Amino acid sequence: MNDLFLRACRGETTERLPVWIMRQAGRYLPEYRAVRQKADFLTLCKTPELAAEVTLQPVDILGVDAAILFADILLPLEAMGAELVFAAGDGPTFPTPVRTREQAAALPALTRADAEERLGYVYDAMRLVRKELAGRVPLLGFGGTPWTLAAYLVEGGGSKSFSHLLGWSYEDPEGLGLLLDRVADTSLAYLEGQVAAGAQALQLFDTWGGLLDLERWRSLALPPLRKVVKGLLASTPRVPLIYYINGGSHLLPGLAELEVDVLSVDWRQPLSEVRRVVEADGPGGRKNWVLQGNLDPAALLAPIPEIERRVERMLQEGATERGWGHIANLGHGILPTVPVDHARAFVRAVQERSQR
Amino acid sequence: MNDLFLRACRGETTERLPVWIMRQAGRYLPEYRAVRQKADFLTLCKTPELAAEVTLQPVDILGVDAAILFADILLPLEAMGAELVFAAGDGPTFPTPVRTREQAAALPALTRADAEERLGYVYDAMRLVRKELAGRVPLLGFGGTPWTLAAYLVEGGGSKSFSHLLGWSYEDPEGLGLLLDRVADTSLAYLEGQVAAGAQALQLFDTWGGLLDLERWRSLALPPLRKVVKGLLASTPRVPLIYYINGGSHLLPGLAELEVDVLSVDWRQPLSEVRRVVEADGPGGRKNWVLQGNLDPAALLAPIPEIERRVERMLQEGATERGWGHIANLGHGILPTVPVDHARAFVRAVQERSQR
Repeated sequence: MNDLFLRACRGETTERLPVWIMRQAGRYLPEYRAVRQKADFLTLCKTPELAAEVTLQPVDILGVDAAILFADILLPLEAMGAELVFAAGDGPTFPTPVRTREQAAALPALTRADAEERLGYVYDAMRLVRKELAGRVPLLGFGGTPWTLAAYLVEGGGSKSFSHLLGWSYEDPEGLGLLLDRVADTSLAYLEGQVAAGAQALQLFDTWGGLLDLERWRSLALPPLRKVVKGLLASTPRVPLIYYINGGSHLLPGLAELEVDVLSVDWRQPLSEVRRVVEADGPGGRKNWVLQGNLDPAALLAPIPEIERRVERMLQEGATERGWGHIANLGHGILPTVPVDHARAFVRAVQERSQR
Repeated sequence: MNDLFLRACRGETTERLPVWIMRQAGRYLPEYRAVRQKADFLTLCKTPELAAEVTLQPVDILGVDAAILFADILLPLEAMGAELVFAAGDGPTFPTPVRTREQAAALPALTRADAEERLGYVYDAMRLVRKELAGRVPLLGFGGTPWTLAAYLVEGGGSKSFSHLLGWSYEDPEGLGLLLDRVADTSLAYLEGQVAAGAQALQLFDTWGGLLDLERWRSLALPPLRKVVKGLLASTPRVPLIYYINGGSHLLPGLAELEVDVLSVDWRQPLSEVRRVVEADGPGGRKNWVLQGNLDPAALLAPIPEIERRVERMLQEGATERGWGHIANLGHGILPTVPVDHARAFVRAVQERSQR
C-alpha cells in the first residue's frame, strides 16, 4: 500500500516525494476521451461507474501516488437549486445567475441529508473508487472555496472581469456575504459527506481568490473559507486539507494563517520563494508548511529532457533542511494537448529523482 | 496649460496629483456609445476624426489630467499583415494565428515608413487631438509590449490557458523569440511615429506578462521589451515611458530593473507594498519610482462615499516622504457598467484630496 501522499500531507518525511496531477483524469488521456464519447460531461459526473472508471485511469496509466475523484466543483451549487449547463466547447454556465440578496436568501444551504440525497452519485463513485483501488493509493476528494463557487454563480459562468461579483462586493458586501455563508454551509455538508464516503484527504480549489487584494480577501473570502476549514477540522475522521490558489502570490502572507495542512500554489513563484513568505515570522506564521505544486502546466509541452530538467529544479526549490515538505504536482490543471508520455515522464522524474 | 501629468512622470513634485483612467474613452460614456452606433470598432480606430472625438470626450466630461489616444494595441500586428477581426460581442481575433518559426519569419517588421503608410490614421488622429487639446492636457500614446502582442497573435485572440504561446515557448524558444523580435522592431517604429505625431508620453501595456515566472519573464519577455524601451529612450524627443502590468506581483523584483519612468500596477497590492519591493536594495534598484494606479476598477461600482474613502486610502498608500511619486489611475481599464458620475467622483476625489 502506497500512503506516501497522506504521510507527506501530515508533514512526515517520506522515502520519496508523492506526485499527482491536477485534472489527471482528463482530456489529454485517450482512455478518458473514449469514455466521454459515450457520455456528456454532466452525465459522466453523475454516473458513478463511469466517474470511477476515469478516476482510476491515471492511477493505472501514469502511476500517480493519489487518485482524485472525477467530479466538478459546481455540482453542489446545482444541488442547491441553481440550474447548471455544460454546453459543448464552452465552460459551465448558470443561466440564472444569483446577483441579489433576495436571490441569495432563496437558496437554502444543503444539509448532510440533502447532500446524500442530491449528490449521492458523488459518494457512490467514491465508494466504488475506494473499493477498486483496494489501498493502492489514497483517494482525494475536493470542492471549490465559497468565494470561487460564488464567483461562478454570480457571474453565471467564467468571466474576464468578474464585474458582477466584484461590483456586488462593493455595493452590498452583506448581501454577497449571505450567499457566501450559504455556500460555505453547503460545502461543509458536501465535503463531510465525501469523507464519510471514503475521501482520505480534501483539496479546496480557490481559482478566483487572487482577484482580491489581501485586505478584501480577508474580509470577503476568508470568513466563509474558515467556516469550511474549521468544520472539517472538527469532523471525524479528521483528514488532511489542501488549499489551492491560482494567481495568489500577493495573498501569501494571509494564506500563511490558514489552518490547512498543505498549501498548493501555481507556477508563478518558485517554491522556495513561497516558503520564504509563508514561513516568515508574523502572526499565525508557521515553520512547517507542506507545499504542493508547482510545475508550469505548459512545461509538459517541452521535450522530455527539458521536463526532467525542470522537475529537478522544482524538487530543489521545494526541498527543506528537515526533509521534503513537498508534494509534487503542476501549478494548475494539465492541458488537454499534453502527450501522455510527457505526463508519464513528469511522474517518473519526480518518483526517481526524489529517492532519498 | 495643465502639465501635471508630464511633470509627475518625470518625478517632479506637483501641487496636486494628476489623474486619468485606463479606457477612459470607452463604453461607460453615453457619448462614446453614440459614436460607436455610427461606426464599428475598427472603423472608429481608423477614422481620425472619430478617434479624436472619443479621445477628447473624457477630457471634457471627467476633467482628467491626460488624454490617451483611442486606438487598439493590436493595430500594428494587422499592419504587419495579420488579419484582425473584431466580431461584435467577442474580443479581437486573428483568424490565422502565428504558431511556427516559418510563420514568424514570413512576417516582416514594420519600418518607420511602413508605419506611416499603414498606421497613418493613428498619427492623423494624434495630430487632430493635439490641435483640439491646444495644450489643455498632455496626450499619451501607447502600445502593447512584444510579449503581450505576441500572446494575442499566437493564440489567435484571448485565451484562458495561453497553451499555444506557452507551449511554443517551451518547445522552440528561439522560434518564438524571432516573432517577439519582429514585434519589438514593429512596436519601436510604431511608437516613434506616435511621438513624431505628438504623443507626449507613452504607455506600454503588458497584459499577459504575469503568465510567466520571473526567470522566464527575464528570458522571454524582457529582451524584446528592452529593445523597445532602449530604442524609445534613444529617440528624440525623449518622452516619459510608463510600463503597465496586470497580475505582476510576483515579477516586481524584475520590473524594478526596467528603465522606464513610471510603473503602473493593478489593484492587487497596495502601492506602499509595490514601492517597498521595487525600491528594495538590489541590482538595478532605484529609490525614486513614480507609481501609477491602482484603484480596483470594480470599486467604481461602490456608492460615491465609499469611492472617496478608497481614493483617500490609495493616496495615502502612494505618498512618499519626498513628495507624491504617484499618478492616480485605476488598476485596470474602467468597466463599461460604471456610472459616469462615479467616474467623475473618482477624478474629483483625487484632484481635491491631493492638494498640497
